[in-house]
Amino acid sequence: MAEIMSDSAAEGPLRVGIAGLGTVGSALIRIIENDQADIVRKLGRQVVVTAVSARSRTRDRGVDISGMTWFDDPVALARDGDIDLFVELIGGEDGPAYAAVRAALERGCPVVTANKALLARHGVALARLAEKTEAQLGFEAAVAGGIPVIKTLREGLGSAAITRVYGIMNGTCNYILTRMGTDGIGFDECLRDAQELGYAETDPTFDIEGYDTAHKLAILTSLCFETEIAADQIFVEGITRITEVDIRVAGDLGYKIKLLGIAERTPEGIEQRVHPTLVRRTSAIANVDGVLNAIALETNHVPELLLAGPGAGGQATAASVLSDILDIARDTYVPPLGVPAAELKPCVRAPMRVHTGGYYIRLNARDVPGALAAIATRMGEARISLESVIQRPDLRVSSPGDDEGPVRTVVLITHETIESAVREALARIADDGFISGQPQLFRIEEF
Amino acid sequence: MAEIMSDSAAEGPLRVGIAGLGTVGSALIRIIENDQADIVRKLGRQVVVTAVSARSRTRDRGVDISGMTWFDDPVALARDGDIDLFVELIGGEDGPAYAAVRAALERGCPVVTANKALLARHGVALARLAEKTEAQLGFEAAVAGGIPVIKTLREGLGSAAITRVYGIMNGTCNYILTRMGTDGIGFDECLRDAQELGYAETDPTFDIEGYDTAHKLAILTSLCFETEIAADQIFVEGITRITEVDIRVAGDLGYKIKLLGIAERTPEGIEQRVHPTLVRRTSAIANVDGVLNAIALETNHVPELLLAGPGAGGQATAASVLSDILDIARDTYVPPLGVPAAELKPCVRAPMRVHTGGYYIRLNARDVPGALAAIATRMGEARISLESVIQRPDLRVSSPGDDEGPVRTVVLITHETIESAVREALARIADDGFISGQPQLFRIEEF
Repeated sequence: MAEIMSDSAAEGPLRVGIAGLGTVGSALIRIIENDQADIVRKLGRQVVVTAVSARSRTRDRGVDISGMTWFDDPVALARDGDIDLFVELIGGEDGPAYAAVRAALERGCPVVTANKALLARHGVALARLAEKTEAQLGFEAAVAGGIPVIKTLREGLGSAAITRVYGIMNGTCNYILTRMGTDGIGFDECLRDAQELGYAETDPTFDIEGYDTAHKLAILTSLCFETEIAADQIFVEGITRITEVDIRVAGDLGYKIKLLGIAERTPEGIEQRVHPTLVRRTSAIANVDGVLNAIALETNHVPELLLAGPGAGGQATAASVLSDILDIARDTYVPPLGVPAAELKPCVRAPMRVHTGGYYIRLNARDVPGALAAIATRMGEARISLESVIQRPDLRVSSPGDDEGPVRTVVLITHETIESAVREALARIADDGFISGQPQLFRIEEF
Repeated sequence: MAEIMSDSAAEGPLRVGIAGLGTVGSALIRIIENDQADIVRKLGRQVVVTAVSARSRTRDRGVDISGMTWFDDPVALARDGDIDLFVELIGGEDGPAYAAVRAALERGCPVVTANKALLARHGVALARLAEKTEAQLGFEAAVAGGIPVIKTLREGLGSAAITRVYGIMNGTCNYILTRMGTDGIGFDECLRDAQELGYAETDPTFDIEGYDTAHKLAILTSLCFETEIAADQIFVEGITRITEVDIRVAGDLGYKIKLLGIAERTPEGIEQRVHPTLVRRTSAIANVDGVLNAIALETNHVPELLLAGPGAGGQATAASVLSDILDIARDTYVPPLGVPAAELKPCVRAPMRVHTGGYYIRLNARDVPGALAAIATRMGEARISLESVIQRPDLRVSSPGDDEGPVRTVVLITHETIESAVREALARIADDGFISGQPQLFRIEEF
């Protein structure tokens, strides 16, 4: 690759083909055109979009593609010998995106993609292929669009071993949770607002159920721990069950609730989890609000590094794609997943039942004598010590399965304990018949 | 350089010479030894420290240097043809550090340095020299030790144009201000604690007067705005005049006080300033506490990117030095200051008198009828509108030049205005004779 690129550098501009002309693709064309002088100053060479492929040739995207070669088929574009670099912005974990990326890499053509689903599923296979043909594979834009976390993981940490990675990786969820906190309104209303503002899709399931975060986390986990990507081994809980009351009580106790993706090395294996998390209001991550994303890296050499910025948006994502293009034009070579794919170890999953940490538990206790005592007894039997117990008349929330009898909402904050103990204690408390409906259970992290 | 490196890659390990074996140098030797397997896995090649130079050959540093070639003279080490890369950790803006770095670059040997003073003074000359001989020059560790901000600026932002950079770049100051805020104690006591904990030097002047921050800001400004480094054009105010009362009043108004370095492009030129700054308590930068550093970048493509982490410490700084070494071993080439030195423009200074923003003003008004009215009148005459006026009996602080008569401490928070107007209004207020001593003046930034 080194020789090929040096030759083409002498020959003229880097010729880029783009498949997929949605928000990001159009923004990329615009940026490359507008910033050509800056690119040449930084790189000593032009970058020119010479060919494109998309669903519709005629749709108005605010950019002029008439001078570019048109391909109906993205795979044909990827195979075109007249481009030096292929940008995949089609999306989807299989289908044309996968076929086109493979086709480019197979012929040794470098690829830049923003497709997290593709990488979460086929990342290791693509890395192997890229290494075989010595083609670079850049995917900075696939995780936290505007934040250079992939570059930092691949190149910025020296030999540091990462012990934990966590972050806010979905702007839709973070916007909803921020609004619920600042405006004291419910999930459904916030989601509607997010949809009106274009921060949430018409079908928001993928975001609000945590799957989008899980895809990104799977990629980060591999880069952090030198393991194969294991997107199917992630414990995932979304944000749809969070209520205003949870946010208010958490706030009273000094916490905010954030949807975090967290991966860490434990004696039992790699723990990968996505769930609503209580974080101290004074922590840096708690103050990453609105549509912003943030990724924190803890290593054996640097205790904590936090990168915060926009996680999505056409322009920020396109800027990330372009930073990959410039790196490739400079002939920077790092294995796609940080170390050669052959060195990746299987990702051994640490089961959630052995997770240790603090818990926020909200239950509806029946308004009968002895209910609270029985709950406290069961927690004690499971050797769970409680940091706070809150029972206030203003906390009434009906829970799924609630039978609407007279109940008192009780919130328990535990000290560090093990998840299996919490689950067992809650099962016994339910068996005792002193609570109504499903308990609400959130994990607490002290960063 | 590309060819040289490719050849030496085939030949064996990258041979590193280190000049300066203080905390960072010793940590670097330890990390390279302990992490050799990780380095080989990431790089496909060994990195070995083969030669060293320091003041004392016999001092116990907890690392074994007996197998390394010893040089009394760092310049001789830099000229040694048996090393492939020279690491400068001597410190100081001139003298042996400068001579040795020049000597290495002159013979085309890549250099990694953590020396911010050297770069603030000679950065452009060194970049020119490095480009001439095609030797890489890495200095990630020179600004915010554990935070990969230089890499992000040089490689991570695509073609984005930076509009403003700001940050907390001195852990000593941030520790002192954090402690003053959390413990309600005075500057002197916090400084003593910082010294006992090793967070402040015996002579802390360089840190607490803002000069260390100014050096780092000068380097960032050049990378951000493609201008020549202009460390002597920075407006600098340290933290020694900040009192507990200022921190308390700022807190009551929803602000924290941080020592920030800020550079931004304005119609008048580049504004570079280091001073105590009021920032909203809910902003991300406000929650970067203790010895942590943070740098925020605002660009035309990505609204804001915040990088937070350790700014100093032997291990974090050594990890940054190593990340530069690995980049050089990979043959990544980017001009030292992001664009070729010949492309750097002179740094045209925007004078502070045209700075616009909000201000925090604390004065001791004489306890006579009409004093507050006179102050308010003068502010009005200067077309400065006030957001808050606070006069409370508990706010008594004696100011430099205070004649100890009966006074009332008054705090004014202005809306956005121009610095010259504030200066003029304060001069008139002083002339009126209604205040005692020097007013306290801090700038407010809304991030």
